[in-house]
Amino acid sequence: MQVKEVLLLLTDHWADWEASYAIAEINSTGNYLVKTISVDRYPKISIGGLRAEIDYTVNQYQCFTSLAMLILPGGFSWGEHPYQEIADFVAKVHEASVPIAAICGATVFLAKHGFLDHTKHTGDEFDYFMEELKGQDYKGQTNFVSTQLVADNGYITANETAALEFAREIFHVLEIDTSDEIDAWYDKFKHGMIR
Amino acid sequence: MQVKEVLLLLTDHWADWEASYAIAEINSTGNYLVKTISVDRYPKISIGGLRAEIDYTVNQYQCFTSLAMLILPGGFSWGEHPYQEIADFVAKVHEASVPIAAICGATVFLAKHGFLDHTKHTGDEFDYFMEELKGQDYKGQTNFVSTQLVADNGYITANETAALEFAREIFHVLEIDTSDEIDAWYDKFKHGMIR
Repeated sequence: MQVKEVLLLLTDHWADWEASYAIAEINSTGNYLVKTISVDRYPKISIGGLRAEIDYTVNQYQCFTSLAMLILPGGFSWGEHPYQEIADFVAKVHEASVPIAAICGATVFLAKHGFLDHTKHTGDEFDYFMEELKGQDYKGQTNFVSTQLVADNGYITANETAALEFAREIFHVLEIDTSDEIDAWYDKFKHGMIR
Repeated sequence: MQVKEVLLLLTDHWADWEASYAIAEINSTGNYLVKTISVDRYPKISIGGLRAEIDYTVNQYQCFTSLAMLILPGGFSWGEHPYQEIADFVAKVHEASVPIAAICGATVFLAKHGFLDHTKHTGDEFDYFMEELKGQDYKGQTNFVSTQLVADNGYITANETAALEFAREIFHVLEIDTSDEIDAWYDKFKHGMIR
């Protein structure tokens, strides 16, 4: 099997925990390599203060045939910038039929740029920005009910408390293990080791 | 209140998720700054493939009066290296009465260097290395029962599935919020936003 890349798209003040379970398992399989990508090559500082180095920029990346997935963790800057160059990149990735997984603020980013129109992504998972979205009457919904995760039309979306559910869904899409093993991994991390 | 530092000690193949919740909240309070420390200044690559830059080295760090906590995430290299320079640093931090929080492989590291002797840290939380420790008949125990977290004698120890419990205990020790607010944070992230 050809080793494929999984891109983690980092922005300023990216959320440390949201893609942490996902990338650790993906990068351990031997079938995928996790690489970081951003709007430029400057290290991106997490909410927790980590300075993560950047492998690629969105304007230069061309290797869509060896790309297995694009992961967009949340963070404080999604609401502050339009990030049109990231939206252009997301469009290219989706056009190449590569799945895109977004969590927390990144989910709102996808919605604002119209990527989730005509999908099952109703806005229910955008809990973090619920008030903001309520103000905009997003897709006509006024009563938001929280949802941990939605998967449809090549997009996975999840809320900030769903890092484990987000990872589990990503593992199923990337087929990093059997379904039973993936679910056992989830149960272990969701419920802990107390027996 | 003087802003104090919280050190995140990174080793090669540090575990992305284990301290992720903890540092994101700590670094957001305004009362603490999270900084990275390691055996040298070379970026340390996580299990998930992130290259994190390093602020301090253990041999040079002297600012113990402005240090609030040392956090040691787990990772694949704890079992491969003796890391005597890290053990010397942990001893200095403990001598300065600064709390030390270790998870997963870092917990085993502390045990092997004798830091957990004569404490309530029984080895129960070292699930990840259970087999290895069983072989060594650690502290005379042969029947390990998993425990999510132990806090005693200035040390917090937790197993790899206890990132949330690890963060909650750290928040209580650092008093980043009221007890009720900390517990509400834990409930939200443990159980998700489904209502």
